Amino acid sequence: MIIVMKSNSTENDIQEISKVLVNLGLGVHISKGSEKTIIGVIGDKRKLSDVPLELMNGVEKLVPIVESYKLASKTFQPKPSIIDVGGVKIGGKELVIMAGPCAVESREQILASAEAVKKAGAQFLRGGAFKPRTSPYAFQGLEEEGLKLLKEAKEATGLLIISEVTSERAVEIADKYVDMFQVGARNVQNFQLLREIGRSKKPVLFKRGPSTTIDEWLNAAEYIMSEGNYNVVLCERGIRTFETATRNTLDISAVPVVKSLSHLPIIVDPSHAAGKAQYILPLSKAAIAAGADGLIIEVHPNPKCALSDAAQQLPPEDFNNLCKDIGRIADIIGREFHYAG
Amino acid sequence: MIIVMKSNSTENDIQEISKVLVNLGLGVHISKGSEKTIIGVIGDKRKLSDVPLELMNGVEKLVPIVESYKLASKTFQPKPSIIDVGGVKIGGKELVIMAGPCAVESREQILASAEAVKKAGAQFLRGGAFKPRTSPYAFQGLEEEGLKLLKEAKEATGLLIISEVTSERAVEIADKYVDMFQVGARNVQNFQLLREIGRSKKPVLFKRGPSTTIDEWLNAAEYIMSEGNYNVVLCERGIRTFETATRNTLDISAVPVVKSLSHLPIIVDPSHAAGKAQYILPLSKAAIAAGADGLIIEVHPNPKCALSDAAQQLPPEDFNNLCKDIGRIADIIGREFHYAG
Amino acid sequence: MIIVMKSNSTENDIQEISKVLVNLGLGVHISKGSEKTIIGVIGDKRKLSDVPLELMNGVEKLVPIVESYKLASKTFQPKPSIIDVGGVKIGGKELVIMAGPCAVESREQILASAEAVKKAGAQFLRGGAFKPRTSPYAFQGLEEEGLKLLKEAKEATGLLIISEVTSERAVEIADKYVDMFQVGARNVQNFQLLREIGRSKKPVLFKRGPSTTIDEWLNAAEYIMSEGNYNVVLCERGIRTFETATRNTLDISAVPVVKSLSHLPIIVDPSHAAGKAQYILPLSKAAIAAGADGLIIEVHPNPKCALSDAAQQLPPEDFNNLCKDIGRIADIIGREFHYAG
Amino acid sequence: MIIVMKSNSTENDIQEISKVLVNLGLGVHISKGSEKTIIGVIGDKRKLSDVPLELMNGVEKLVPIVESYKLASKTFQPKPSIIDVGGVKIGGKELVIMAGPCAVESREQILASAEAVKKAGAQFLRGGAFKPRTSPYAFQGLEEEGLKLLKEAKEATGLLIISEVTSERAVEIADKYVDMFQVGARNVQNFQLLREIGRSKKPVLFKRGPSTTIDEWLNAAEYIMSEGNYNVVLCERGIRTFETATRNTLDISAVPVVKSLSHLPIIVDPSHAAGKAQYILPLSKAAIAAGADGLIIEVHPNPKCALSDAAQQLPPEDFNNLCKDIGRIADIIGREFHYAG
Repeated sequence: MIIVMKSNSTENDIQEISKVLVNLGLGVHISKGSEKTIIGVIGDKRKLSDVPLELMNGVEKLVPIVESYKLASKTFQPKPSIIDVGGVKIGGKELVIMAGPCAVESREQILASAEAVKKAGAQFLRGGAFKPRTSPYAFQGLEEEGLKLLKEAKEATGLLIISEVTSERAVEIADKYVDMFQVGARNVQNFQLLREIGRSKKPVLFKRGPSTTIDEWLNAAEYIMSEGNYNVVLCERGIRTFETATRNTLDISAVPVVKSLSHLPIIVDPSHAAGKAQYILPLSKAAIAAGADGLIIEVHPNPKCALSDAAQQLPPEDFNNLCKDIGRIADIIGREFHYAG
Repeated sequence: MIIVMKSNSTENDIQEISKVLVNLGLGVHISKGSEKTIIGVIGDKRKLSDVPLELMNGVEKLVPIVESYKLASKTFQPKPSIIDVGGVKIGGKELVIMAGPCAVESREQILASAEAVKKAGAQFLRGGAFKPRTSPYAFQGLEEEGLKLLKEAKEATGLLIISEVTSERAVEIADKYVDMFQVGARNVQNFQLLREIGRSKKPVLFKRGPSTTIDEWLNAAEYIMSEGNYNVVLCERGIRTFETATRNTLDISAVPVVKSLSHLPIIVDPSHAAGKAQYILPLSKAAIAAGADGLIIEVHPNPKCALSDAAQQLPPEDFNNLCKDIGRIADIIGREFHYAG
Repeated sequence: MIIVMKSNSTENDIQEISKVLVNLGLGVHISKGSEKTIIGVIGDKRKLSDVPLELMNGVEKLVPIVESYKLASKTFQPKPSIIDVGGVKIGGKELVIMAGPCAVESREQILASAEAVKKAGAQFLRGGAFKPRTSPYAFQGLEEEGLKLLKEAKEATGLLIISEVTSERAVEIADKYVDMFQVGARNVQNFQLLREIGRSKKPVLFKRGPSTTIDEWLNAAEYIMSEGNYNVVLCERGIRTFETATRNTLDISAVPVVKSLSHLPIIVDPSHAAGKAQYILPLSKAAIAAGADGLIIEVHPNPKCALSDAAQQLPPEDFNNLCKDIGRIADIIGREFHYAG
Repeated sequence: MIIVMKSNSTENDIQEISKVLVNLGLGVHISKGSEKTIIGVIGDKRKLSDVPLELMNGVEKLVPIVESYKLASKTFQPKPSIIDVGGVKIGGKELVIMAGPCAVESREQILASAEAVKKAGAQFLRGGAFKPRTSPYAFQGLEEEGLKLLKEAKEATGLLIISEVTSERAVEIADKYVDMFQVGARNVQNFQLLREIGRSKKPVLFKRGPSTTIDEWLNAAEYIMSEGNYNVVLCERGIRTFETATRNTLDISAVPVVKSLSHLPIIVDPSHAAGKAQYILPLSKAAIAAGADGLIIEVHPNPKCALSDAAQQLPPEDFNNLCKDIGRIADIIGREFHYAG
């Protein structure tokens, strides 16, 4: 942390601040420039988290030097983490594909979905049981009934199950049925929920919020990790910008940026980023080429009959082609994906 | 709702769509332009919320004509709502000011805050007991202990109490102590929480999220209202943009826009928008001049000792001056505020 | 400027950088923290503008401490500038209102506009002669013919004339007719044009671009000032964000932020920010309450017949009411405006 | 175009509007919904560009159905355009790579750059002679002298030359030296410049602005095309968002979106998007995988000595590796690139 002093700050201001820092057990390094004096703070910045330095006399601004998250940081753990979910390793050489419908709608629908995505090579079946929808008048999900159907699909196909949890109650229920929790974009700073998931040890796919910076996202991941759950996989799913041609703007750069700041794996969700099925294939290829550890894709056996987000769900044949292309790109960039179609 | 057909759509495509609409009990109006055909859908759009029209053959895009929220809309209730909280009327002629520290820190601090804001004319004491913080290593609030202190401050001063709730559990606890719930920006689409608050009948201050459009915000308010709680007051608190000179960008236009779309009152939070105490006075005056029904402002008896968000809390003397200015502007724009200082 | 070194940087890296800095005549201050070393650079940062420090071995990032603009900065000139245009002082106690149609369309239209805005108290007549339009198929302005009509309106009413220039050629032509140039949002970083205006000494109203940070905007103003033209008045006109309820998002906070960073006056353009006539009155009042030095407003004698931006032009009677309200708010906040209606 | 009427509009309002439309030679189609009436306008929307329909009594809003650009649209020309520049075909099967330093600095530097990029397989040499810089105190380019050096490099290597033009004067000068003009992001709506380039017939690389929607960008391209120059190649280079980890946010989705709306080729500039050399390789691979027709990349023989944008220029060896990877991905996605290294 660096404290930049105002041009008109006094020697006394500097002494006052130094005193506060020294009393907290921190080191102080004063540097007088031609226009401004700066004070370098040496030691654990977290000692300062509740000290309002910016209000002390003569202070112009504070400049953080070290990021405020720790467990999620590459400084803490330089080697990339590999998260094991039921034997599938996320963040290793093999790419991971999670696929399935936006929402679990019926036994028939979810079993057909599972079969279709399994056939193309996906390792995970996704399907929403608790659906957060923009309008309260839209379909809200089958809840526990939906989770039971997902479990049945797992037994039928061997696919691992991932499903979104939206509340502490949902965590408790879903815990019995799923292999991996998903935290959706709208809950990226629902810290109560993050802590609850942190106390579970179950792996979690943690989506970025539509207006969350990468720095805030890693700080939010820290909420989960600081409770003891290190099995966090990040998921870029588009951010909100002025452009309206796509539902969100896929921040493809987040892939290499996260890889330079954190050891956590990162996958990409092109379905929510694009919001339109026709853009999912090019964005999926882009994500893998940029270095993502996998994809999560919405696939529906019959998108025209889907009860939610119909426009962004792929039919099985398109998903199959996508997996084929991903397999070929994987080879070239030193990754692996076993297209099964 | 209007369905815009692709240039190369066929007569058959149009017939197929018409059939689906008619089967849902909706009227159909076909209009052939020089380049494209459009189909007007007549009737309650909500019948369509789970029908994926955009996937039907020949469809280029859907254009909504009527907003999807209803109870929050001015069409539903043209007259402005006045929300009564313990005798104080929000949305009427009198401006409402809610003030107090970011977080309840101690008995002494909250009582001093209450006295200070009461003295200047505020009607509500605010103070966080459940604090959602960006980093898990920062002070997280006194929880129920904090709420008890707020209640004590109410008894000492007669101020009404407002405090943020961040989970269903917090709603249950806070219900015993506060006069008005606050839903923070991070929870604007935490629909589980919104429904819980909808089932209570206690008034709620509902903040806009940093990347929530006004349309989405009113749809989210609909979650609370559709459960039966119509006592919703909106609060603009800044949106996330590329500009970093302020913590958020206060969307001052949201005040007249909301007033043109909805009957719900709207107040402004300049503290979180600006993030710096020095900008709070001009932004407060701007908000009132733009037609806001009130303000919520962070005030701390001694900001330099605050445990959170120190930089954006006003000391009592500045808050006092702010109330004096607000009182004078109120007179000019046909509102009232009784500066008590 | 501070250089933050990587955790794994070496003593040698630090020595190399120090050598480069010392050779440029700059001072060096090294501070070793618990996790990272930082190097403070002492002296004129502009000596570094073409030295790629961020590529030297061991460097993690550069943190600027002093802003890179100089002439526009409050450090350079702490006292607010007052720009005199034909006897009207912008930035002084008196508020300045510039008003008139989006585009000059005809002799009759511009004379009627001039009379109307004069009557309400405006000091400047605005009117576009060179119109940059989003589509090439829309009306592009009367060019020199329009400027002549503006001059005629000046002679008839005594109003000062402001009009937009979009190219070096337009600067040359307009120079003969207008009292103040306007640089529009689309040209905020058209540095060629800015320099040209800098070489003229005529006052200029310099609009912020839709995606220009305040820091970049002040740097762009520096292009004009560094050529010798210090008569720069800034104009906030809304930035581009995800919100679409208004044409742009008026960044009302820019008013106090600019006043804290720069000595230049700042006025507000609510017409382009809102894009809808119904929001102009509340936003105008907000701007003045926030401390703006004036307003520029689109007024048309008959908006329904306007050839461009019809939706955001006020009819004379609404503009008259606006001026009346501005006059009353001015009194309260220690400014002056002589409503003439 | 659809006109949505207010709930309280009258029969008379509708008749008035119909009359205006019919007088313009447009067809009218009235459709009465349960809540609102809409009027479909049939015929060439451009007849309406200067008619302020939104101000007529009873009108709530206008909804465009057909995009306002024409020559750039896929409706106008469904088949992808292939732009021939000196025998190199942009938009065909072969990928095009343009590479070279940010700015032309010296004869030695530009010849070394040309040789390096040629060796890896690039078809174009880029290099800035007219440099628009954020601060007026930074290096501004060698102007005509720089263009002469580029021409010399062309003669030495056979590479085609592309260079940015920032004013009408620059167009005139550059015309003698370059094979393709480049219009930079800051000039995307400098319509004067666009028309000038439209009057030339020389191919142009037309960059998206940092806050330009895809729709506005295609409208701006229309300025060039409507003057007769159809040789336009688009270039996505990142948009401005709230994320600051990268200089801009590369809008990778713009590639498939542009391909669905327009027949013009589109390439990607990862250097300006990322702003950091370390992210250029993953973003380049992503761009090609997403379907871009090529790349423009900043390469400098010795980035540590670059006079501008040093942090984002690749050294030759990294560029060489990039070309190798692009060649391998090209094969897989049905494109071609002849890696020459």
